[in-house]
Amino acid sequence: MQYHFADRMTCAPPSFLGKLFAVSSNPDIISFAGGLPNSSFIDAAGIRDAAIRVFEEEGSVALQYSTTDGYLPLREFISRRYQKRLGLSIPPNQIQIVNGSQQCLDLVAKIFLNKGDPIAMERPGYLGAIEAFSLYEPEFRDVALGPEGPDLTEFGNVIRDFRPKFFYGIPNSQNPSGQTYSDNTRKAIAEILEGTDTIFYEDDAFGELFFDGKPRMPIARLIPDRCILSGSFSKVVAPGMRIGWICSPPEILARFNCAKQAADLHSNFLCQKILARYLESHDLDAHTRTISEAYGRNCHLMCDILDDRFPEGMSHTTPVGGMFMLATLPEGLDSMRLFEEGIKGKVAVLPGTPFYVTGGGQSTIRLNFSSMDEARIIEGMERLAKVVRALL
Amino acid sequence: MQYHFADRMTCAPPSFLGKLFAVSSNPDIISFAGGLPNSSFIDAAGIRDAAIRVFEEEGSVALQYSTTDGYLPLREFISRRYQKRLGLSIPPNQIQIVNGSQQCLDLVAKIFLNKGDPIAMERPGYLGAIEAFSLYEPEFRDVALGPEGPDLTEFGNVIRDFRPKFFYGIPNSQNPSGQTYSDNTRKAIAEILEGTDTIFYEDDAFGELFFDGKPRMPIARLIPDRCILSGSFSKVVAPGMRIGWICSPPEILARFNCAKQAADLHSNFLCQKILARYLESHDLDAHTRTISEAYGRNCHLMCDILDDRFPEGMSHTTPVGGMFMLATLPEGLDSMRLFEEGIKGKVAVLPGTPFYVTGGGQSTIRLNFSSMDEARIIEGMERLAKVVRALL
Repeated sequence: MQYHFADRMTCAPPSFLGKLFAVSSNPDIISFAGGLPNSSFIDAAGIRDAAIRVFEEEGSVALQYSTTDGYLPLREFISRRYQKRLGLSIPPNQIQIVNGSQQCLDLVAKIFLNKGDPIAMERPGYLGAIEAFSLYEPEFRDVALGPEGPDLTEFGNVIRDFRPKFFYGIPNSQNPSGQTYSDNTRKAIAEILEGTDTIFYEDDAFGELFFDGKPRMPIARLIPDRCILSGSFSKVVAPGMRIGWICSPPEILARFNCAKQAADLHSNFLCQKILARYLESHDLDAHTRTISEAYGRNCHLMCDILDDRFPEGMSHTTPVGGMFMLATLPEGLDSMRLFEEGIKGKVAVLPGTPFYVTGGGQSTIRLNFSSMDEARIIEGMERLAKVVRALL
Repeated sequence: MQYHFADRMTCAPPSFLGKLFAVSSNPDIISFAGGLPNSSFIDAAGIRDAAIRVFEEEGSVALQYSTTDGYLPLREFISRRYQKRLGLSIPPNQIQIVNGSQQCLDLVAKIFLNKGDPIAMERPGYLGAIEAFSLYEPEFRDVALGPEGPDLTEFGNVIRDFRPKFFYGIPNSQNPSGQTYSDNTRKAIAEILEGTDTIFYEDDAFGELFFDGKPRMPIARLIPDRCILSGSFSKVVAPGMRIGWICSPPEILARFNCAKQAADLHSNFLCQKILARYLESHDLDAHTRTISEAYGRNCHLMCDILDDRFPEGMSHTTPVGGMFMLATLPEGLDSMRLFEEGIKGKVAVLPGTPFYVTGGGQSTIRLNFSSMDEARIIEGMERLAKVVRALL
């Protein structure tokens, strides 16, 4: 029988992802292509203890249906933490729990986008966002991302001429580039958006992972009425529980809640309770400090190797936080070719092209530095350097 | 600032749902309006033991990111159970784990529906499906549902003239009506669909809850290449873990998987592992027998009270399984009026109107018989009879 899929499904994922998956499950290959937080910082014992207490004290409640907005004590924790870390006043009723911040991407697109609507994002931009947004068939524009954040001239032009419904960005340690917006860029963006109809969709998946431990000012503090802010426990507690959140003005959140209810009623209630219990008895600040210091060491190591051991013409971003950096290959070297040859040399990188929603990026690769220890980074980067040298 | 939402959001939920929620959290009111499985059949101790084993043996794996399709041993369990219970041969790679079967509704609509596409369902139909499908702005038709299933003449006409992309139905103990399709209706539906381009979307949330313990033949066995079959652990193990699944031909499942990945990467991995561990060490058949026998007693009790203690002109469906029945009020009595007066009399019912996607149903109410014990059913139904009598 012939199946008649929706037009949106023409964006089906390229078979390349299947190849990538095969690569990352092969233990002989050192992969910088993935995006996992380091498993050694997942506090399985602490989470187990929290789980046991939930089962003992309220097991059958935690296993029953619950409300769409999410477990209130968890939303209260998020609210208090915003106040304390970032000086952000977001009451719990402006916070909605979701299945990791990836679900925000789907549902924000769902509540805002008609087919053909304009949206904008960074160049390069987060692949998961491109995939989620694409299914709503918008028109994309992108704005070059540099060491200070989006190019402000280009940003201003896109907002004025294209009038996107939202601009999607990751101001803190962006995926894939590792770039962080400067304070001046944040202020300029807020000023440019004032008086327009464009929302800033601020994805803050990595804001707790600055190597220096210092938080940066969220754009949501500057323009709260035109900002959607999403966060996640995936990078600082555990991704396997799939728990993130969204904050937005009430009028937006009401629509979001409606879309969330239609999508899956509510997020896993058992894990919301376990997580809330875990957070009330553990020092998340100390935990994120441990993680970000380790990621910082890995990142500096990787930068040093790129600078010292690779052929001339290889350049890279210099992240101050997060899990990724973007490297640009010497002229004439194509990232897909490097991927193919890398596999033969037992090292995997992620070609940058899928991160460029309007095309380009053939000479870029994304490198992950969070998921492995220093010895493996050294070994993997040496393999990579060898492959690059052989290709030149 | 003015927010410009997508056209699909004009279907925002009526404020009635807020009122309903307030009602169901008031312990003085006996509510037949909800749809919870009975908490006393949630085996919190068994699930806790399974959780402890998961944490002990593979905690940090269970808490890490995982694959979109879902935990293989869980999909293998579902596959084996289909073979054993229903004679259905569905390999694990044709099964995808989702966040409760509600997520199937969203994602099936997403992969099939362009704005304005035709779909059809039962009249009355499942509210959660109406809400999920509506966000993709389809054209709806519905087919009257009776004690044998959908009216076959009407069904044939709708399939031929309207050519829906799919027909969505709940053949086993439907929500809200409690009706179950006869074997003859299932065969006739399969015959009518042969040679058309319409898919049958078979939602089997209640197939384990027949009071006589006997499974019914799934339509998916008759027309596997044009059937999407969804199931859920919410009614037989625990809804709070939000774990369900979908089975479909591979070509459909590939698109579904793409949409699932964009929606939230994957379902809660920790709970998938806990559930798989729980199922391998517990007798699910014995457990579902206990649940369905209890629900059967509740259902018969409710039917008896409706027959004996209510004014003439009150009628009701006679479920052979599931959690709901539909009652029709004596002429001239409006269900919304009964809802309002019921609250004053400390009993809540769910007006049937939202289940009628093309309008109607003003004289119907949905009654839930799963969530409470017999004493509370008796007390609640007596309150309801009093309110009905007073209104006539």
